Amino acid sequence: MIKVQTLKGFRDFLPEDAKKRQYVITTLKDVFASYGFAPLETPAIEYEEVLLGKYGEEGDKLMYRFTDNGGRKVALRYDQTVPLSRVVAQYGSASSPLLPMPFKRYQMQPVWRAENTQKGRFREFLQCDADIVGTNSPLSDAEVISMAAKAITTLGFTNFKILINDRTTFKDLPTAVITAIDKLKKIGPEGVVNELLGKGIAKNSEEAYQLLKQVEESKPTERLGQIFSLLETMGIASGQYEYTPTLARGLDYYTGLIFEIEIDGYTAGSVCGGGRYDKLIGMFSGNDIPAVGFAFGFDRLMEALSERNLFPKDLQTTKVLVTIFSKELTDKSVEIVTKLRQANISAELYVDENTPLAKQLKYAVAKNIPYIVIIGPEEIEKGLVTVKNLETREQKQISLESLSDTLKK
Amino acid sequence: MIKVQTLKGFRDFLPEDAKKRQYVITTLKDVFASYGFAPLETPAIEYEEVLLGKYGEEGDKLMYRFTDNGGRKVALRYDQTVPLSRVVAQYGSASSPLLPMPFKRYQMQPVWRAENTQKGRFREFLQCDADIVGTNSPLSDAEVISMAAKAITTLGFTNFKILINDRTTFKDLPTAVITAIDKLKKIGPEGVVNELLGKGIAKNSEEAYQLLKQVEESKPTERLGQIFSLLETMGIASGQYEYTPTLARGLDYYTGLIFEIEIDGYTAGSVCGGGRYDKLIGMFSGNDIPAVGFAFGFDRLMEALSERNLFPKDLQTTKVLVTIFSKELTDKSVEIVTKLRQANISAELYVDENTPLAKQLKYAVAKNIPYIVIIGPEEIEKGLVTVKNLETREQKQISLESLSDTLKK
Repeated sequence: MIKVQTLKGFRDFLPEDAKKRQYVITTLKDVFASYGFAPLETPAIEYEEVLLGKYGEEGDKLMYRFTDNGGRKVALRYDQTVPLSRVVAQYGSASSPLLPMPFKRYQMQPVWRAENTQKGRFREFLQCDADIVGTNSPLSDAEVISMAAKAITTLGFTNFKILINDRTTFKDLPTAVITAIDKLKKIGPEGVVNELLGKGIAKNSEEAYQLLKQVEESKPTERLGQIFSLLETMGIASGQYEYTPTLARGLDYYTGLIFEIEIDGYTAGSVCGGGRYDKLIGMFSGNDIPAVGFAFGFDRLMEALSERNLFPKDLQTTKVLVTIFSKELTDKSVEIVTKLRQANISAELYVDENTPLAKQLKYAVAKNIPYIVIIGPEEIEKGLVTVKNLETREQKQISLESLSDTLKK
Repeated sequence: MIKVQTLKGFRDFLPEDAKKRQYVITTLKDVFASYGFAPLETPAIEYEEVLLGKYGEEGDKLMYRFTDNGGRKVALRYDQTVPLSRVVAQYGSASSPLLPMPFKRYQMQPVWRAENTQKGRFREFLQCDADIVGTNSPLSDAEVISMAAKAITTLGFTNFKILINDRTTFKDLPTAVITAIDKLKKIGPEGVVNELLGKGIAKNSEEAYQLLKQVEESKPTERLGQIFSLLETMGIASGQYEYTPTLARGLDYYTGLIFEIEIDGYTAGSVCGGGRYDKLIGMFSGNDIPAVGFAFGFDRLMEALSERNLFPKDLQTTKVLVTIFSKELTDKSVEIVTKLRQANISAELYVDENTPLAKQLKYAVAKNIPYIVIIGPEEIEKGLVTVKNLETREQKQISLESLSDTLKK
């Protein structure tokens, strides 16, 4: 007997969860599209050499790699930035109509990483990226921040904060300092100081504190000033974003703006992070191509939405279940459901002729369908249908026309 | 230098194609949801033993299999039916609220097969399934056909034919006869006869023709009669579906109804196929679980839509590009685009302050954006904006309010 199970770090999404995921995906896509960002899809499997060496030693280790049936060394998609770089190199050119520059694309596909699993960390997860490629303007920096904020707002979050910094502030500091300061929120100032001491960056704690203080007291760069001014013009009030000189973001590929969005009271971490990375997209093209963008942490977003009860109640549920009173009266129910569907009402038919009514009702309750319709001999004689509101338990006999009206409300 | 390329049989979908794909996916999902079908997502990678041996020798050979970093033997999703069976065995039970029975689910995820590539055959492609699990009623048979037809109609196809047969008609015939008759359309009656002779099924051509004739003259089963009657009640006219006694559908797991949908004039093959398979879903549960469903051939659907020019013209294009007249006037353009967005108009900002207007215009043309807006010193002085319709080339100076009205039309 085969054990029915999924691999650790891999998940099934049953209908209730899958519906919620689709709602979030659709909402994000709609916002991105309304800003002129277009979708891009790349293959799940690529030549290993295209992906390898781009994510550092750690990435190479966590990548799913294998030899395919044709003896080719291949790897599974590890992120969407390297594939984006490949696409830009492969199809993009100043005169290419395929990728009009600045190229604004979003991409939402699963990626695979052989991570140690833990709460909130999976081996298969949806990556949600939006990026602008081909300009290093402050305008593009502000545009991606504003779009991320719009997406968050559209999902229903009202209290959130955009933390913003400029990585060029750190340009004279060793990477170890950035790495230490990146942990400030997690380990506190003492932790940072200890790390600076431990790594021999500071000779004593006074010097370490001095270093931290120096970062904390940094003033916004001129570039950040421009971005802040643009954000205000874009309707993002100064209370909504916050200059955060200690924001470092671990990844060392950022070259300018960095930002994160935190939902008030959601403590698992930021739900969105991004910034400018001008040295990465050109990796296959042999020249620098400026880019700025962000990624949503999809699973965190789902969790934060769930905690705040922000999912719409009627998520892709049909309005009504048309029940089957008896096998002989099946045709009558089919007639009614057909008429409802012709009136563009999302209507479900109970698809078994031999099920007791009570069980059909339980089915409707399990699926959160708000109304059921019953067509029995009495209803047929009167030319009416019985409609029952499963929430209020109110039940009445009405005409088919009134039924359509009731359900359209 | 790394060669930027994708693997044979794998595809990038650049924005124009990706938009079209998303349109079709969304349309199908909306139709399925309106019939009460709910989404299901399963992992791309499963334990090999869950997938292996389920698709026959050919399937095992074409499956992407490898050993993961933890030494587990795993395989990539090959179809969505075996995962569905696993899900039903893992979470389903008479009393389970997770999968209310009859369980109606759709699933649209990529699958991977190491096929020999050829025109229209890829190694990664989107599988689009909808199935009803847990009832063997004629009503469920009719419901899935009617839903498939609704999806086809919603996509804009007007001339199509639903070919229907019942596999139980073939119950006394050897599999080789079914396999031969399945090719009737492709190789003609002579071809079928030759195959029957070659395989030794028929002693001579007269006997072979007799066998073919016997199939061609089969009458619809009683079950099909019930399904046809239900289809008529569901508003599917008898000209729309066709009893096709020679329809065989290759896969040997069908146990009753089989059907295909053909678009008139689209010659690459049927765009949808399905039927009843009562012996498959229970493979992990140890008991028979009835099921009926279908799969759309997504790539064929895309091709047929494209040939018939059925994609909406304004597919996820923003309504307007707000251009940047000059770096100094950037703020004015940002103001305008912000106001348009606040009025729920999908509006794109040109995200570079140093690009000549002519180039911005070319960008709008390349992206099929219907309008551009220009805000220069003259417009600012008058308190107006210039709007240009890129199709009619008509250009005028209007107020911001009139602009919103124009774009909302």
